[in-house]
Amino acid sequence: MGPRDAVTDGISLSEVAIDDGFWSPRRERNRDVTIEYQYEQLEESGSLENFRRVAAGESGDFQGMWFQDTDAYKWIEAASYVLAQRDDPELEAKVDGVISLIADAQQPDGYLNTYFSLVEPENRWTNLHMMHELYCAGHLIEAAVAHYRATEKETLLEVAVDFADLVDDVFGDEVEGVPGHEEIELALLKLYRVTDETRYLELAKYFIDLRGKDDRLAWEIDNPETLGGGEYEDGSIIPAARDVFTHEDGTYDGRYAQAHEPLRDQETVEGHSVRAMYLFAAATDLAIETGEDELIESLERLWTNMTTKRMYVTGGLGPEEAHEGFTTDYDLRNDAYAETCAAIGSVYWNQRLFELSGEAKYADLIERTLYNGFLAGVSLDGTEFFYENPLESDGDHHRKGWFTCACCPPNAARLLASLGEYVYSQRDSAIYVNQYLGSSVTTAVDGATVELSQDSSLPWSGEVTVDVDADGASVPLRLRIPEWAESSTVTVNGESVETPSEGYLEIERVWDDDRIELTFEQTVTRLEAHPDVAADAGRVALKRGPLVYCLEAIDNDRPLHQYEDPSPTSTTHRPDLLEGVTVIEGEASVPDRAGWDGRLYRPADETARERTEFTAVPYYAWDNREPGAMRVWIRS
Amino acid sequence: MGPRDAVTDGISLSEVAIDDGFWSPRRERNRDVTIEYQYEQLEESGSLENFRRVAAGESGDFQGMWFQDTDAYKWIEAASYVLAQRDDPELEAKVDGVISLIADAQQPDGYLNTYFSLVEPENRWTNLHMMHELYCAGHLIEAAVAHYRATEKETLLEVAVDFADLVDDVFGDEVEGVPGHEEIELALLKLYRVTDETRYLELAKYFIDLRGKDDRLAWEIDNPETLGGGEYEDGSIIPAARDVFTHEDGTYDGRYAQAHEPLRDQETVEGHSVRAMYLFAAATDLAIETGEDELIESLERLWTNMTTKRMYVTGGLGPEEAHEGFTTDYDLRNDAYAETCAAIGSVYWNQRLFELSGEAKYADLIERTLYNGFLAGVSLDGTEFFYENPLESDGDHHRKGWFTCACCPPNAARLLASLGEYVYSQRDSAIYVNQYLGSSVTTAVDGATVELSQDSSLPWSGEVTVDVDADGASVPLRLRIPEWAESSTVTVNGESVETPSEGYLEIERVWDDDRIELTFEQTVTRLEAHPDVAADAGRVALKRGPLVYCLEAIDNDRPLHQYEDPSPTSTTHRPDLLEGVTVIEGEASVPDRAGWDGRLYRPADETARERTEFTAVPYYAWDNREPGAMRVWIRS
Repeated sequence: MGPRDAVTDGISLSEVAIDDGFWSPRRERNRDVTIEYQYEQLEESGSLENFRRVAAGESGDFQGMWFQDTDAYKWIEAASYVLAQRDDPELEAKVDGVISLIADAQQPDGYLNTYFSLVEPENRWTNLHMMHELYCAGHLIEAAVAHYRATEKETLLEVAVDFADLVDDVFGDEVEGVPGHEEIELALLKLYRVTDETRYLELAKYFIDLRGKDDRLAWEIDNPETLGGGEYEDGSIIPAARDVFTHEDGTYDGRYAQAHEPLRDQETVEGHSVRAMYLFAAATDLAIETGEDELIESLERLWTNMTTKRMYVTGGLGPEEAHEGFTTDYDLRNDAYAETCAAIGSVYWNQRLFELSGEAKYADLIERTLYNGFLAGVSLDGTEFFYENPLESDGDHHRKGWFTCACCPPNAARLLASLGEYVYSQRDSAIYVNQYLGSSVTTAVDGATVELSQDSSLPWSGEVTVDVDADGASVPLRLRIPEWAESSTVTVNGESVETPSEGYLEIERVWDDDRIELTFEQTVTRLEAHPDVAADAGRVALKRGPLVYCLEAIDNDRPLHQYEDPSPTSTTHRPDLLEGVTVIEGEASVPDRAGWDGRLYRPADETARERTEFTAVPYYAWDNREPGAMRVWIRS
Repeated sequence: MGPRDAVTDGISLSEVAIDDGFWSPRRERNRDVTIEYQYEQLEESGSLENFRRVAAGESGDFQGMWFQDTDAYKWIEAASYVLAQRDDPELEAKVDGVISLIADAQQPDGYLNTYFSLVEPENRWTNLHMMHELYCAGHLIEAAVAHYRATEKETLLEVAVDFADLVDDVFGDEVEGVPGHEEIELALLKLYRVTDETRYLELAKYFIDLRGKDDRLAWEIDNPETLGGGEYEDGSIIPAARDVFTHEDGTYDGRYAQAHEPLRDQETVEGHSVRAMYLFAAATDLAIETGEDELIESLERLWTNMTTKRMYVTGGLGPEEAHEGFTTDYDLRNDAYAETCAAIGSVYWNQRLFELSGEAKYADLIERTLYNGFLAGVSLDGTEFFYENPLESDGDHHRKGWFTCACCPPNAARLLASLGEYVYSQRDSAIYVNQYLGSSVTTAVDGATVELSQDSSLPWSGEVTVDVDADGASVPLRLRIPEWAESSTVTVNGESVETPSEGYLEIERVWDDDRIELTFEQTVTRLEAHPDVAADAGRVALKRGPLVYCLEAIDNDRPLHQYEDPSPTSTTHRPDLLEGVTVIEGEASVPDRAGWDGRLYRPADETARERTEFTAVPYYAWDNREPGAMRVWIRS
């Protein structure tokens, strides 16, 4: 198989069934609550009304953010992932209804954007960096591909194809430029793969290659009066590129949208972190298609920069709120921005890097991100979301039901609904088990039908059983040894197998009702951060298996900053707590409160400390009880 | 002597001559550079032009901030302090020139405010909380009192009296309300003391007593369209009370201006820290006059709250930038706002508390503030100023030559010029030596002429000599034992005197060419902050004598966050460094950089540390060399 085959990989979402103690309840709530709620929001927010009014030939009175069309597209995409895995005629009918509205709103030449059609039809393609027409197009295409794959219906795919053809006609010809928010690139590569039309591959390559090379951004900054956007009907302002791309000293470059230099020259991950993840995901797909060494090297370099200098221990990305993104090496301040969508984007990118390389480290990072930086973004009951995921809070940061810029909730919904895409892969005629969660898959490998059935006790303990049957065919099976496993033991039908300390354990044999049993040792580890991370100097974080832990005020008597030298003594699974979590308990040192006598400062040699108990809970579960302080990094 | 006599205290600025190794060069630069530069700024900024144009009956085209008149008043005040201590005909002529412009701009009824006279004369006294007419009046009065005391000329005093009389006629009658920025209260008390007119005492009491009781603020918030202010001629906006006094949740109260409840009910120091210091200073003066127990108790309570829960180790005040002020108990984040003017205001308040009580703790705090929180605000060469005084910097915080809101530079100038007011006091027929710095004073106590001459080696070492002569009169002398002195030895004419560990050493004898020698032991102390100060948990600050120290990047090889457990080993005076400072040198623990192998996180049990040297410099001297990080609180 060539690289392209590797990524399309033969394992479709519909071939994977998830039945997992940890993830299934979350996925059910995602399906029954979140996706249902989002559907209601489409009407509430005016998103569907925008489509209806365009179809009716009306103008003005656009509702919502100017890229609001994506709410409908992302909802269709999430719903389609649900439909790929189970029959749901009611949901399918709703999807068909929304698609019908979208199709009706499409212009005769294929153009589709309700903001421009209603408000300023004459200004199409003028404000590439801020007005997000291509970003909306990308989400339309992703929704169309997901819907087509799930249902084989071409209703939305035809809409997407018509629009993509228009974009292909216009760009590189009438208009030269790249979008200010990447998204269409990865969508075009998906479209290419379902249609086999190389023009979409070429168009994606055009956008990826041009970024950082053209002078369109400078022109848009210098000519805001000729562009679409500006003031909104309700008086609010759509930001100008000048506001977003200009640094404090008055200079500007494309850093915010990774357009400060050509991708292949970039040494560090920069700018808006979601934009960066989407670009790198697309570029990795492009590299899978082209095999271009220079591009692959640049992506590996960027990944190394990110994971060794610019990533939270939770897998969260981007400390800075002002531009929602990356700053400098080792700036990992604990009042992190770490947008939920950036964690999701990281999962997308890492999945493609895995498909490109077959390396386990990418699946390791997906696991870390899923259980921590991503999952914290969703409340236990599935109804509220974090936009930002700090690693420390005074108790005033809480999830919300929805946002004006509602990117995170639907993004979380589509990731949970498509979780099955990350469990197994087929690559080079081998089956990879990348994530451990209760599930089964039936797929064809070189003509043989392979069935895998997995039971998993993650994340609370490390026992996994994989039953394999291939009717006597010989297929290599590659099982990821998680980076966090202190030690691993693996048996096949009870007989021990030698196991590497990391990477993949490959087992190749004639499979015929065989059972693989894996045990990954989970110990509580005190992690420290690199010495150049100022925010974590003199601090440790507790981790157990794939889970990062935190202290919450509700479980601990003292203000959290007073805990020092946390020494774990035991772990206890508490089914009653936070829908069932394993807590870490231990002792820490805290200051003796006596002897201050109304003083605010005193000689440090008077310091006395005492021991006290602490309880840590998984980071993903924080802020699901009464509001209070939270801290991941505890003084050591 | 009654309390009122205590504060006027018989020692005038002109009786004190300062000749000190540490302070005199700073005072000379203040006189020759800062005050001269400020005079030029009065013309540059349009401040004087505003007065000229009002005098000429013109309108419109007001220049500068709407309270810009205070620049001229504060300059006159600072210049008058200089004139009180030396003849300077050139400076005196400049002062007379500015006073003449001011007098010409006064309206027939006594009103004086160039913004309102030029821009909206019909809106006098409409916008009390934002438009600062009474704040400007207060600085006019302070300047007039200082000028009168220094020169005995009544030119400006007459202007101030006419304006004060108008204010007295209008307020409590036509208009009920208090100013949004306190200042006139303390100024009126000064005016009362030079004129003996009780109407000014009563008017100050009116403003102090009404604060927090009236509903004028609510009315101004609800009726912004009827008020003065609003949009400026250059398009900028004068903030509305609604913007400044409203909390995030939409409710409002007078907290920003200490008007949330009556002063006598206040339990905690709140709001804008400069405003708070000016109010409390005025209220303390009022208490000196009235002896009112309830007011004294409330001031002591507020002082205790501030000094035991809301004050930086430097004496700096107010962590929050948004409202330039106080927040909650123990919120002492190291990216402190700690406005220079707030430190200056604290000196004003504490001086009055001393005058009220005769307690040494107030003089101790003045010393701490002068050497640290205040002095850091002025560059070594006297040309640049901090508005904010953080205790930790990444290297991007620097002094500037001037500010749009130029309150701090002239405030620093008037404090340095009037430093002589804080060295000696006369109270209850005793002479107090409150600050140790080279100086002499000749003053009358109960008919006797007392001469003191002081030599001091502070802040670098603790040797002080005080020569006393009273021609054989017996006068109690109270010498402050600094709070920082680990131990003290005092001799009179070579004979030891028993010395308390803190407070005042009182020596009463017939003085006739006697010599007192004091030695205050200076040791390097590692201070810790109260356990509830989250920002300083697990950290220590180095202090020696009155000086707080800091690490600057330029003196230390490692990023400052890497230093742990700083152990001082020696102090060295380096005359070449930063105009001569004593540095603290020692060893600290820093992480071994090896063994990270491209990892960002690793198990903490792999931690290795090594010892390295560090050098700390006085906090006041930071940011006077090449830009770099700075840190007061070092990990312990």
